[in-house]
Amino acid sequence: MKDISIGLLGFGAIGTGVVKLLQRNGSLINRRLGARLILARVADVRPGPRPGAKLKRGIFTTDAEAVIDDPNIPIIIELIGGDTVALKLVRRALEKGKHVVTANKALLAKHAEELFRAAQKSGSALAFEASVGGAIPIIRSLREAFVAAEFSSIYGIINGTSNYILSRMTKDGADFKDALAGAQRQGYAEANPAFDVDGTDAAHKLAILVMLAYGTPVKFTDIYREGIMHVTALDIAMAAEFGYRIKLLAIAKGDRDWIEARVHPTLIRSSHVLANVEGAHNAIFVEGEPLIEAMLFGHGAGMMPTAGAVMGDVVEVARDMLAGSAPHRAPMRAWPEDARKRVPIRNIMMREGEYYLRCTVADRPGVLSKIASILGNNGISIARVIQKGRDIKGTVPIFLLTHGALEQNLARAVKEMDRLDVVKGKIVFIRIEE
Amino acid sequence: MKDISIGLLGFGAIGTGVVKLLQRNGSLINRRLGARLILARVADVRPGPRPGAKLKRGIFTTDAEAVIDDPNIPIIIELIGGDTVALKLVRRALEKGKHVVTANKALLAKHAEELFRAAQKSGSALAFEASVGGAIPIIRSLREAFVAAEFSSIYGIINGTSNYILSRMTKDGADFKDALAGAQRQGYAEANPAFDVDGTDAAHKLAILVMLAYGTPVKFTDIYREGIMHVTALDIAMAAEFGYRIKLLAIAKGDRDWIEARVHPTLIRSSHVLANVEGAHNAIFVEGEPLIEAMLFGHGAGMMPTAGAVMGDVVEVARDMLAGSAPHRAPMRAWPEDARKRVPIRNIMMREGEYYLRCTVADRPGVLSKIASILGNNGISIARVIQKGRDIKGTVPIFLLTHGALEQNLARAVKEMDRLDVVKGKIVFIRIEE
Repeated sequence: MKDISIGLLGFGAIGTGVVKLLQRNGSLINRRLGARLILARVADVRPGPRPGAKLKRGIFTTDAEAVIDDPNIPIIIELIGGDTVALKLVRRALEKGKHVVTANKALLAKHAEELFRAAQKSGSALAFEASVGGAIPIIRSLREAFVAAEFSSIYGIINGTSNYILSRMTKDGADFKDALAGAQRQGYAEANPAFDVDGTDAAHKLAILVMLAYGTPVKFTDIYREGIMHVTALDIAMAAEFGYRIKLLAIAKGDRDWIEARVHPTLIRSSHVLANVEGAHNAIFVEGEPLIEAMLFGHGAGMMPTAGAVMGDVVEVARDMLAGSAPHRAPMRAWPEDARKRVPIRNIMMREGEYYLRCTVADRPGVLSKIASILGNNGISIARVIQKGRDIKGTVPIFLLTHGALEQNLARAVKEMDRLDVVKGKIVFIRIEE
Repeated sequence: MKDISIGLLGFGAIGTGVVKLLQRNGSLINRRLGARLILARVADVRPGPRPGAKLKRGIFTTDAEAVIDDPNIPIIIELIGGDTVALKLVRRALEKGKHVVTANKALLAKHAEELFRAAQKSGSALAFEASVGGAIPIIRSLREAFVAAEFSSIYGIINGTSNYILSRMTKDGADFKDALAGAQRQGYAEANPAFDVDGTDAAHKLAILVMLAYGTPVKFTDIYREGIMHVTALDIAMAAEFGYRIKLLAIAKGDRDWIEARVHPTLIRSSHVLANVEGAHNAIFVEGEPLIEAMLFGHGAGMMPTAGAVMGDVVEVARDMLAGSAPHRAPMRAWPEDARKRVPIRNIMMREGEYYLRCTVADRPGVLSKIASILGNNGISIARVIQKGRDIKGTVPIFLLTHGALEQNLARAVKEMDRLDVVKGKIVFIRIEE
């Protein structure tokens, strides 16, 4: 059996998972690969042992560049995260012709063009199955299984932390803050959960999915993103009364001429499969011809599932090495570099669909008529209205569902309504997807 | 751009889908491949046009062997089905060093060892994503994504016809015969639906999944199979009352030492994801370390989804040709041929689990006590009993759920109960999976 050496950069949670996975399933992996994977060097700024992950003496270092520069190591796993140190190191590895396997979605969402160009130039692989959906093989499916497909949409739940929080809010009637605190206690949310709850993490992943499905470069800031911080337990209860669940969805729709790409809390029918994807699970739908629709579901994060996705990529790269395949046998980002074409991402204001609105208004006659009139003047018709209870301060919440409307009309109407003196506090709206 | 010629054997539904897909998405596929796929020859015993599928003049033939023998055609798509003619042709193609892409589960379930040995010898690819789960990329995921996994189970709904029939029976309260007739009218069941409703088709597919997940040869007749013909609308209604749905599941469980592999109607909790997989959809769960669990869902059959899976394989084979990869870069059946090891399939009598029983008994006192006593003597305890209504002929149905029991004990108890003179008609039991 041939030996193939691996260098690991980043000995945090996922890095620890990779070391544990090699300990447990290493001989199985080697049997399936037909070669011996050797963890030759591990680099991290923080020395010291990690529970359950034993390193051979002498392989740990704080010098990541030395790992990359080691001529005996052809495959580098990058699990540092972020796009500062990781960017420099991945760039260096690719320029030196090393194959890189990464789980770093922030890096790819922002620097894909530069990095894949470097990989193209040097003939290195840049593999990233672990960057989206943990153990879910969505990247490989887009690269290899669905190559004959013209996608009409790709959407799903791709941030486990926010899904866990929304699940808790739904089950326990908890408010966002309490559910977040609970998620942090349970280890489902980090001390700084900003990227998870404000939609940034899901948008990073959506950028990657759009790049693969549509063969286009993606400017990350073109992706609309909105988090779950303003979703209340009351919204969730009212959505349920209307027959919906609230989920943070990442949604891409489009064709060869334009794409919508957006991340936001979304009302979906309670009977939809995604409505019942709970906790830290992820699920991704793809739609198009000829597959009609397919869905992949699994653990979207976590030490071991993500480590499994990393090792799947390591094995793919190693198989290509062993078979002497020309570089980029299967294009790393699903399309040959010279077959890609920019498809513009449409502004969120062009979105067409239905909306849920929560308005806090003065409890007096004629208020609904004023609201309905503004909506009507903006070409928006009301599908359903519920007014619940009465408040001691003289305000009441009104909940509306609209029929299909253009977002720019809705946004203009909301602005006008916010200026009404009978409207107290900001109007909140949440998009509905049927 | 390089040209790569394809020969198509079998111009039935899926073959027509392949031709239509190349017409519609051919330029997209070529762009993603970086080469031009040319449909050079199409063979079928039945000449004549197929709706929506135009063939270039002169490429149709009734001589399949001539297509295989054409030196300009390196890739053969076999969509004839069955294991008589198809076996001879696939064998011939592999021996001649042609790459073969097939959707033929019956062929692979029964002749995998011979065919993969031939492919190994000649360095040909034998690709079969379309043989299980239509557009669902389960074969590729087992070969490439889940290479680091030690599987504890793989199970799901992998026959769309029987799932459609059970869905109709559940929704409409229809009996098996009526639901089958409806499925035939709707085009969801063939004129001869035997393999679909008796579990054979699902068992063919399960044989393939077990071969991939466990790296073992599978003797098809070792797989226990039982169809849905004996499931009644009453069973479905009673299962619902107990909190279950009845689905035809294909189930493999095991480790390195033994495997269970069986296809049978199954009671699963109404809240389980699979309980809500309706109609012609398929869904497959895999469980194990490190992925914990994952599920793939989609159209399990149909002209276009299956054609898409076929083209995914054609592209994989073509990519390997273009990259000059050594043969079997990624082992076609997930494990290198020399790394495979026989794992025995356990007899169904060793199955442990809970059971649903329907007994038609004389409507007189003491009957339940006799039944309970036989079950007790065989080490089986009763979890729940329901007796419904009264029959004019003096018989009543009794429905029981057992606690966990060994199947050989349950089978012995049923045999004994069938001999009781108070038991009228055969006792029916259905396995429960939690």
